[in-house]
Amino acid sequence: MSAFPEIGKIAYEGPESDNPLAFRWYNPDEVVEGKTMKDHLRFSVVYWHTFRGTGSDPFGPGTAVRPWEDGTDSVENACNRARVAFEFIEKLGAPFYAFHDRDIAPEGANLAETNSNLDAVVAVLKEEQQRTGIKLLWGTANMFSNPRFMHGAATSCNADVVAYAGAQVKKALEVTKELGGENYVFWGGREGYQNLYNTDIRRELDHLGSFFHMAVDYAKEIGFDGPFLIEPKPKEPTKHQYDSDAAACINFLRAYELTDHFKLNIETNHATLAGHSMMHELDYAGAQDMIGSIDANTGDMLLGWDTDQFPTDYYLTSQTMLMLLKYGGLTTGGVNFDAKVRRESFEPIDLFYAHIGGMDAFARGLKIAAAIRADKALENFVSERYASFDSGIGQKIEQGKTSLKELEAYMLEKGEADANQSGRQEMLENVFNRYIDRV
Amino acid sequence: MSAFPEIGKIAYEGPESDNPLAFRWYNPDEVVEGKTMKDHLRFSVVYWHTFRGTGSDPFGPGTAVRPWEDGTDSVENACNRARVAFEFIEKLGAPFYAFHDRDIAPEGANLAETNSNLDAVVAVLKEEQQRTGIKLLWGTANMFSNPRFMHGAATSCNADVVAYAGAQVKKALEVTKELGGENYVFWGGREGYQNLYNTDIRRELDHLGSFFHMAVDYAKEIGFDGPFLIEPKPKEPTKHQYDSDAAACINFLRAYELTDHFKLNIETNHATLAGHSMMHELDYAGAQDMIGSIDANTGDMLLGWDTDQFPTDYYLTSQTMLMLLKYGGLTTGGVNFDAKVRRESFEPIDLFYAHIGGMDAFARGLKIAAAIRADKALENFVSERYASFDSGIGQKIEQGKTSLKELEAYMLEKGEADANQSGRQEMLENVFNRYIDRV
Amino acid sequence: MSAFPEIGKIAYEGPESDNPLAFRWYNPDEVVEGKTMKDHLRFSVVYWHTFRGTGSDPFGPGTAVRPWEDGTDSVENACNRARVAFEFIEKLGAPFYAFHDRDIAPEGANLAETNSNLDAVVAVLKEEQQRTGIKLLWGTANMFSNPRFMHGAATSCNADVVAYAGAQVKKALEVTKELGGENYVFWGGREGYQNLYNTDIRRELDHLGSFFHMAVDYAKEIGFDGPFLIEPKPKEPTKHQYDSDAAACINFLRAYELTDHFKLNIETNHATLAGHSMMHELDYAGAQDMIGSIDANTGDMLLGWDTDQFPTDYYLTSQTMLMLLKYGGLTTGGVNFDAKVRRESFEPIDLFYAHIGGMDAFARGLKIAAAIRADKALENFVSERYASFDSGIGQKIEQGKTSLKELEAYMLEKGEADANQSGRQEMLENVFNRYIDRV
Amino acid sequence: MSAFPEIGKIAYEGPESDNPLAFRWYNPDEVVEGKTMKDHLRFSVVYWHTFRGTGSDPFGPGTAVRPWEDGTDSVENACNRARVAFEFIEKLGAPFYAFHDRDIAPEGANLAETNSNLDAVVAVLKEEQQRTGIKLLWGTANMFSNPRFMHGAATSCNADVVAYAGAQVKKALEVTKELGGENYVFWGGREGYQNLYNTDIRRELDHLGSFFHMAVDYAKEIGFDGPFLIEPKPKEPTKHQYDSDAAACINFLRAYELTDHFKLNIETNHATLAGHSMMHELDYAGAQDMIGSIDANTGDMLLGWDTDQFPTDYYLTSQTMLMLLKYGGLTTGGVNFDAKVRRESFEPIDLFYAHIGGMDAFARGLKIAAAIRADKALENFVSERYASFDSGIGQKIEQGKTSLKELEAYMLEKGEADANQSGRQEMLENVFNRYIDRV
Ligand SMILES: [Co+2]
Ligand SMILES: [Co+2]
Ligand SMILES: [Co+2]
Ligand SMILES: [Co+2]
Ligand SMILES: [Co+2]
Ligand SMILES: [Co+2]
Ligand SMILES: [Co+2]
Ligand SMILES: [Co+2]
Repeated sequence: MSAFPEIGKIAYEGPESDNPLAFRWYNPDEVVEGKTMKDHLRFSVVYWHTFRGTGSDPFGPGTAVRPWEDGTDSVENACNRARVAFEFIEKLGAPFYAFHDRDIAPEGANLAETNSNLDAVVAVLKEEQQRTGIKLLWGTANMFSNPRFMHGAATSCNADVVAYAGAQVKKALEVTKELGGENYVFWGGREGYQNLYNTDIRRELDHLGSFFHMAVDYAKEIGFDGPFLIEPKPKEPTKHQYDSDAAACINFLRAYELTDHFKLNIETNHATLAGHSMMHELDYAGAQDMIGSIDANTGDMLLGWDTDQFPTDYYLTSQTMLMLLKYGGLTTGGVNFDAKVRRESFEPIDLFYAHIGGMDAFARGLKIAAAIRADKALENFVSERYASFDSGIGQKIEQGKTSLKELEAYMLEKGEADANQSGRQEMLENVFNRYIDRV
Repeated sequence: MSAFPEIGKIAYEGPESDNPLAFRWYNPDEVVEGKTMKDHLRFSVVYWHTFRGTGSDPFGPGTAVRPWEDGTDSVENACNRARVAFEFIEKLGAPFYAFHDRDIAPEGANLAETNSNLDAVVAVLKEEQQRTGIKLLWGTANMFSNPRFMHGAATSCNADVVAYAGAQVKKALEVTKELGGENYVFWGGREGYQNLYNTDIRRELDHLGSFFHMAVDYAKEIGFDGPFLIEPKPKEPTKHQYDSDAAACINFLRAYELTDHFKLNIETNHATLAGHSMMHELDYAGAQDMIGSIDANTGDMLLGWDTDQFPTDYYLTSQTMLMLLKYGGLTTGGVNFDAKVRRESFEPIDLFYAHIGGMDAFARGLKIAAAIRADKALENFVSERYASFDSGIGQKIEQGKTSLKELEAYMLEKGEADANQSGRQEMLENVFNRYIDRV
Repeated sequence: MSAFPEIGKIAYEGPESDNPLAFRWYNPDEVVEGKTMKDHLRFSVVYWHTFRGTGSDPFGPGTAVRPWEDGTDSVENACNRARVAFEFIEKLGAPFYAFHDRDIAPEGANLAETNSNLDAVVAVLKEEQQRTGIKLLWGTANMFSNPRFMHGAATSCNADVVAYAGAQVKKALEVTKELGGENYVFWGGREGYQNLYNTDIRRELDHLGSFFHMAVDYAKEIGFDGPFLIEPKPKEPTKHQYDSDAAACINFLRAYELTDHFKLNIETNHATLAGHSMMHELDYAGAQDMIGSIDANTGDMLLGWDTDQFPTDYYLTSQTMLMLLKYGGLTTGGVNFDAKVRRESFEPIDLFYAHIGGMDAFARGLKIAAAIRADKALENFVSERYASFDSGIGQKIEQGKTSLKELEAYMLEKGEADANQSGRQEMLENVFNRYIDRV
Repeated sequence: MSAFPEIGKIAYEGPESDNPLAFRWYNPDEVVEGKTMKDHLRFSVVYWHTFRGTGSDPFGPGTAVRPWEDGTDSVENACNRARVAFEFIEKLGAPFYAFHDRDIAPEGANLAETNSNLDAVVAVLKEEQQRTGIKLLWGTANMFSNPRFMHGAATSCNADVVAYAGAQVKKALEVTKELGGENYVFWGGREGYQNLYNTDIRRELDHLGSFFHMAVDYAKEIGFDGPFLIEPKPKEPTKHQYDSDAAACINFLRAYELTDHFKLNIETNHATLAGHSMMHELDYAGAQDMIGSIDANTGDMLLGWDTDQFPTDYYLTSQTMLMLLKYGGLTTGGVNFDAKVRRESFEPIDLFYAHIGGMDAFARGLKIAAAIRADKALENFVSERYASFDSGIGQKIEQGKTSLKELEAYMLEKGEADANQSGRQEMLENVFNRYIDRV
């Protein structure tokens, strides 16, 4: 029985289509820079917002109408929901999905029962993956919702909670491997603090370091070879998350010697909550070879919490794709819609509108980025701008082959530096618009 | 001839004094935790805001009335100003001061002349240091005001500008050593970007890494053995500074293998602009042994730029001192008032009010912090909160001697984690107030 | 049967007490400026956070342990909870409480049943009020939680929802009158928009104007003569609330000719989310005679959502009291703790710690404010600062008795304005600290 | 002698042009909704940023290369600059310009001399207006730069300063009339406060009210009949400006009975600094018939100060034009580029790039908005969404012809409100993108 009987497979109809249930830009087999859109974008649907989101917020309960839900938290309902999810993803045409353990199956009376619930739903997911060809982008463990995690999971002040979290990650890793997941993600839910008066930062970070090493060891043991990804977020639910942005994450990974095993899963809304643009976080992480995957969404720049809206802004999507292409494109990662429909968009069809809009915006962003790259419209400007480092004193600086003494001698002789060139920010913004126009 | 004839040495008169030109809390020889206030706080007056600030802002020129200025940018005026500065610092009773090269002496027609101007003023400063016993906390080079630095200094796209900056740092290091400076600071003025369309982040960061290594080498060469300090700031004047917060700085230092030579100079207003509390930045840096010194000021939490106000909030000063004491107190660093009087506080006497208020607030903050520590009012709570890591499974986790498998076995057996304890945030905030009351 | 058997009546023990369950500053009968603390502060406990808060947040369900709850949404449980609430308020010694209709009683299958549920609990509340002498500060209707209000209540695009809201307000007004409530509050929950693409601002505001006039009319009809209060809040749950700050509220009230019947209920956390300090909102509203009551809490200045924390900062409480005293003190309004314990402070006793801390902070704030006022420590400075308007050209300007022509003639003759005086911000901040120290 | 010899009149070359010195979208005579682009957009160049901006910022002096400046503050240089300005505006093809009195002419030794300087330059401007046909959009007085205005102008605590400001406005009004200015603007520079400890808000606002009434009276006297415009801005240079946003401005105008004479000049960057989108401020002001003109620029949403960047974002420009068209289009107002090139864009040609980009972005925005309106792509959705107010109970509510009693009776009978419809935010965002694509 179909959950979306009135909706067929979403088709590509091209930019002139007015059909709100068709793609205007996402044409999976269209080739851009020698690769299909499908392979560039590796779109992924998230289980949590899309199939578990209810529209509740701190001021009211859920509003979502989901006819396939029977209102129970049973394994049976969970299995049924899994089939609905695959119907949705298949009709949408996304090649990947992602989940937390607790999204897909209910917790039981104890850990053993919880694990067995999980196994039951995993069997359905496996079957659906085989039926549809849809793949698991990544798995993760929800270690922030259950009240036991109120003080954190790996950084809880309660050692038993760390142990519980370890057990949970073990199982989630196994399940991710079982389903062929291409990455394993840690979003540090409640890993941070509410108040420094009661917190021992050093001890908590040490525990987190140990925890990640245990995960690395166990992945090796079971032969899970996808990368681990950390997802930076500055705040919410805690007052201050340890993984506050790309810099904090990479610094942590360097400090605890984890850089060989971890990369980042970068989310737009988390970037902006941390005071950075998405383009910044990608460029910063990319320059250090730390881009793993992206959580594609957008925040509201005037709101201070994680709204996780669907991304439709072409500037955002084209800047994002420009960075991903610059750093070699996505390999195991994907464009994962960690995004939710608004509370007032409560019908199932809104889930389609939302994903179609996001996919189209990214497809067009990809084409804009590729067009800019084809013309080297920014690249040539940048190369020329730094040309003084290609030879002479600049090259010596770049290669670390000079000294303050030599620089002083050079400059005392010269008296003043060569003149600067205009940065041309306004002209470059106009150039960018030219590509927005033309794709 | 005195610049402040009507003001004598600022004296400690105790909390009951209504004299706005006396200390009510800062009693330099009072002993707290076995050390004098003077040695704990190591107050420092900044040359830039206090002796070069004019009160100009983006909407209007300076307002400051400074009778000792002759309106020229001559070396003579600079030397005279230096003597005024020492009269001020001496009357205030601060043991340290700090400067940028360009604060103290005017630039000349070329680098050679500029250096010679600097030498002339340094001679006066040295004389004044000897006369008064006031010491140099740190020196630094202003590599952001001159238009040549519009695109950055060590990260400029113009190699000549990097060379110029190198020459400037060489001289500034020499001068700092000459004056017995206890640290050398880098605040990355325009080291960052305005726009990513025209920027090569990786190349710029590589140049910055090389640059710092040259500074380390030259310091060794001339026998300057104070630490180098980086001062985090997220934005302003650039859209995004590379040294955006403690995490970004430490990550950079780790990446370029500079952690043996560098620590941080942490400023309150920069912390909050980056979305962190001062207490956070200190705890985070301290946990990684990276606290060098502090720039003591405050921002306005409702304004989005660096207001550099004088710190008078007891919560801020006591939390700051709590962190400094926790991590061993200041050694070569100081409590440096990188703060400026408001544009409307344009009289010389306002400089006294402002510094007295800041010094008193920090002195009282020190006493509050020491009282909390004496009672272990927070410490005991924290130790108990993490007690589960002192033995058993917690200890194994902390020591890295367990595995996900063992944790799973432990938890499958147990079924559920031991119950959590309340975090008691409200009670601890009340406890904090108790110490604010009683000092 | 007591819900808090281990806790007795919270007593005033004075500043030297270390008892976390005693008042150190709130001494109800202590007289300040000729009035008891109790009458100045008119403390009020909120039903919603304190008796209905569960500790849930967008990332996890509730954590609160509340032994008196039977887990049902029955009227019986609601009645029992009401008795627990009064035990708490009585032990705390707060003279007032406040509620939304849906806090106190469950919704039924239809409006009639809902109203009858409400009546049943109101009977208990009335009994408890009589038993204890605790009074109702204000009542209000929750018109934001039920999914029917997803698009707003009085500003919903669905006319039936406006009608429902009207019916609900009618009943809430009756109940408020029945219980002797001294005010009636509107917090515009979902009165605002998520997106302007689908919104007709003018039509929505017109409906809101009509709605308030109906409330005014009905209040007159039933003889409810307390003021109506609007509570400004800029955002959350909607992207933009119509009542975004004091200015927006007062502008609305002027536009719809409602200023005779309405004043404001000003909340700290809403003020700061709107970019204003609490002191600003109070001074701004007070200058227009629009202060009605306050919701006493605090936000976290580094977080972008409404954290509704308990207020413990003495600067905040003393500035707040300074403004309230300046504008004549609270009459029908109160210091209402619209504040919630943190999710990690899940025990009943945390409710006591939290309220005690807030009450003490306000009591001390009152004393600080009164001390400043007794010495006219700020007032004299301000009077002198504006003295040029007490006579001459300044007086003419103030009285509207001059013209641009006259001003030009005056100034052409004079050539330049008389010199300005320093604003002395730093000195005044030091003066403020003096009073923080001494109380 | 030409200041821009290498640049001719900027021509419209159409979207396919790669010429950075041509318009791709702004085609002045192209008709949209029955009016030429020129008449819709009424572009205006600002004298301050464009001809007086130097690129200075709080961390360094100016960088701008302006060969026509002789480095003096003489009237002669000012007259020469005026001719350069008109060459620029003419080559750009903007029909309007705007200025502050102090932008165009230097202050003299006293008010009389200052006025006479102003007259000298006004004569040149008049000549240039006649020569070119370029018109004055609005004039205003700079009452924030000179140190005399440190405490405000009309709200200064120094009555003489208010008098000076009055004299200055008188002259600025005369000059504006002389040059045929179509509006007169007040941006309240330093009208606000730095600190509430030293401020009497009520007295300051009263003075501001009187001041505006004097301006209204004098305008009537001299026959200046353009509207007065207030420009909202929340902060900077003061900590809190009185005209913080549209709501605060309109509330003030209502309170002081000035709504017949004043409308608003709404600036994007000020809107966002106040926590509102530009679309919000326009819709809010428009619904109250208070839109006068716009200052077209953009801020950086991650920066907390007024960056006044040139607007190039199509979402911004199309939303802005949608609102302007909705409320009847610009009449006396214009699209005034209160925007400045970045400090690093220091060449004269950058001024052209910047304005061309802004004009193109607004021209395309106009076309997008018109296309949306032609299809009623949003309008139809909105009409249907509120259709329940077109008859029945909804109509009664809208017309103020019902009561709480009637609403209760209606709803008791009905039991529950009719079901809500989805808000369709995601679908509407996709629709918007469709128009971005197609223009
Ligand atoms: Co995410
Ligand atoms: Co998110
Ligand atoms: Co600093
Ligand atoms: Co600073
Ligand atoms: Co409230
Ligand atoms: Co609130
Ligand atoms: Co403007
Ligand atoms: Co602006």
